[in-house]
Amino acid sequence: MTLMNQQILLDNRPQGEASVSNFKLVSTPVPAADALADGQVLVRHHYLSLDPYMRGRMNDSKSYAEPQPLGQVMIGGTVGEVVASKHARFAVGDHVVGLGGWQEYSVVDATQRGALSKVDTSRVPMSAYLGSVGMPGVTAFYGLIKIIQPKAGETVVVSAASGAVGSVVGQLAKARGCRVVGVAGGADKCAYVVNELGFDACIDYKAHADARSFYKALKEATPNGIDGYFENVGGMILDSVLLRMNAFGRVAICGMIAGYNGEPTPLQNPALILVNRLKVEGFIVSEHPEVWPEAMQELGGMVATGRMKFRESVAQGIASAPEAFLGLLKGRNFGKQLVKLV
Amino acid sequence: MTLMNQQILLDNRPQGEASVSNFKLVSTPVPAADALADGQVLVRHHYLSLDPYMRGRMNDSKSYAEPQPLGQVMIGGTVGEVVASKHARFAVGDHVVGLGGWQEYSVVDATQRGALSKVDTSRVPMSAYLGSVGMPGVTAFYGLIKIIQPKAGETVVVSAASGAVGSVVGQLAKARGCRVVGVAGGADKCAYVVNELGFDACIDYKAHADARSFYKALKEATPNGIDGYFENVGGMILDSVLLRMNAFGRVAICGMIAGYNGEPTPLQNPALILVNRLKVEGFIVSEHPEVWPEAMQELGGMVATGRMKFRESVAQGIASAPEAFLGLLKGRNFGKQLVKLV
Repeated sequence: MTLMNQQILLDNRPQGEASVSNFKLVSTPVPAADALADGQVLVRHHYLSLDPYMRGRMNDSKSYAEPQPLGQVMIGGTVGEVVASKHARFAVGDHVVGLGGWQEYSVVDATQRGALSKVDTSRVPMSAYLGSVGMPGVTAFYGLIKIIQPKAGETVVVSAASGAVGSVVGQLAKARGCRVVGVAGGADKCAYVVNELGFDACIDYKAHADARSFYKALKEATPNGIDGYFENVGGMILDSVLLRMNAFGRVAICGMIAGYNGEPTPLQNPALILVNRLKVEGFIVSEHPEVWPEAMQELGGMVATGRMKFRESVAQGIASAPEAFLGLLKGRNFGKQLVKLV
Repeated sequence: MTLMNQQILLDNRPQGEASVSNFKLVSTPVPAADALADGQVLVRHHYLSLDPYMRGRMNDSKSYAEPQPLGQVMIGGTVGEVVASKHARFAVGDHVVGLGGWQEYSVVDATQRGALSKVDTSRVPMSAYLGSVGMPGVTAFYGLIKIIQPKAGETVVVSAASGAVGSVVGQLAKARGCRVVGVAGGADKCAYVVNELGFDACIDYKAHADARSFYKALKEATPNGIDGYFENVGGMILDSVLLRMNAFGRVAICGMIAGYNGEPTPLQNPALILVNRLKVEGFIVSEHPEVWPEAMQELGGMVATGRMKFRESVAQGIASAPEAFLGLLKGRNFGKQLVKLV
């Protein structure tokens, strides 16, 4: 019997909010081992990563990346196991990360630089290579260390604080002697951020009906103002943070999930960038490959020794990916959102 | 007969737009030469500089600088001549720049570092030390060279292009091999920017009724997009420029005159900072004294050899300063706004 590969394709583009009807589940045969070309590797995915950037790819608008083509497998990071190989550097049984997409198996041209990387799962769990020791972790590292450049004693704020990126930002900043304040949606997430991750404070934005109330809580949590802000969401939170920024503060813009459905969210008072002499910088981690070795060393070491904590929301089976992804966009996940495929 | 010093005080703070009734003209005796303390210098001002930043000082709100105190002489840059001195480094007849304020004479404690600087007026006219070879020129230099860091072949846009700062930004960028596009208010200003200053194009924002029309003109003038933007105004122009920015573009925020009367002007689509991976930085030149020698050398050399052109709007007599200042805020000046006092 032929082994089948279940895949999720982008079937049509969202009008406003994304929905499950934008996706389509199909099944195709897995290539046989002897059908691989030289340099190709067949990978069985153990985990698929779900990340907010995927929502941007679903639109057909100008952005930093090409739109996800219709009728093709959704893009996505994966970690798994080599099940067949025609490349000398990869052997059956190796654990590897790559961009396998929303499917159970992928055939990778391993001669392409960076397409597939072996990972050591003796001290770091496989799934962490999609989270704290993967793209989200390096994203946190780049924005915090290279843009915000925090100094001991400074105050750093991060939104989506319990998420895959935000949790790493906060723990890296704590390790550098900063006061760290998270913003998250829900009392349980805030409790986790403070009690488990060791942030100094966390503000539950859902507990605040308007910007004024949120700002008041932010002010109380940041008695010395804010020196660095790691932005994952945009909207009211960004407006409030800008009002608390100290002179020469740095803002790393990693995501603006608030505007992903097409309605731009204005920044209420851009003059604050001048008044407070801020540096505001947008970035995409894939454009800074030079930072990976340095970041992976620190992140891997912290995870292996238990100094970097993380949490995962795990959906089961490829068919659950669309629902899990839509939940992620609404903040229903708690920690890194994964889909377990094995 | 005692020599009198006419002064303009800030009498009360503006409610919304500033008006002449916010100011008050008074007259006080000029100190006699023998009344000076050791280290003091008496300066007769030839020119007073009027600059947009002064509007911010008139408000009593949190900003980068202390508000201008009520009942005191308005702050302002001046260039003039030493008429009496009890400081070894300054002699009667020396030409000096300082922060003399809106008045005809000032007594300066020349022992204070940077309070008074001698200037060479043999090759550069005295008034230029308040413009292209003064604070506005160094402001242009810092924002363009240190923040935007233009490379030959890139496109740089500057708003308030015919003004004291904008005109220097454009000429410095042209000297570095950039395509330079100005934005100014009025056909005469635009003609000057292109024909006299040598910009590649200039858009008269007053000729465009809405953002869409302005954007269309901007697009035509920037066929290869925009790599650097020097911001003096804010509002619709900034929104349109952000839509034309290339990946890794730089925005230097020097002024946001559009919001100086208290009504914040939202930035419509801050997500563009992420989409285009922009670096947006606010700055105030007085906080970067290290750049002065380098900037003054290039600017002074360009003015002395005629490679840096400038234009001045000169009001006559200290009593005309308030009207001239309000005109500046409305863009009624053409080039650097000065008040001639001698």
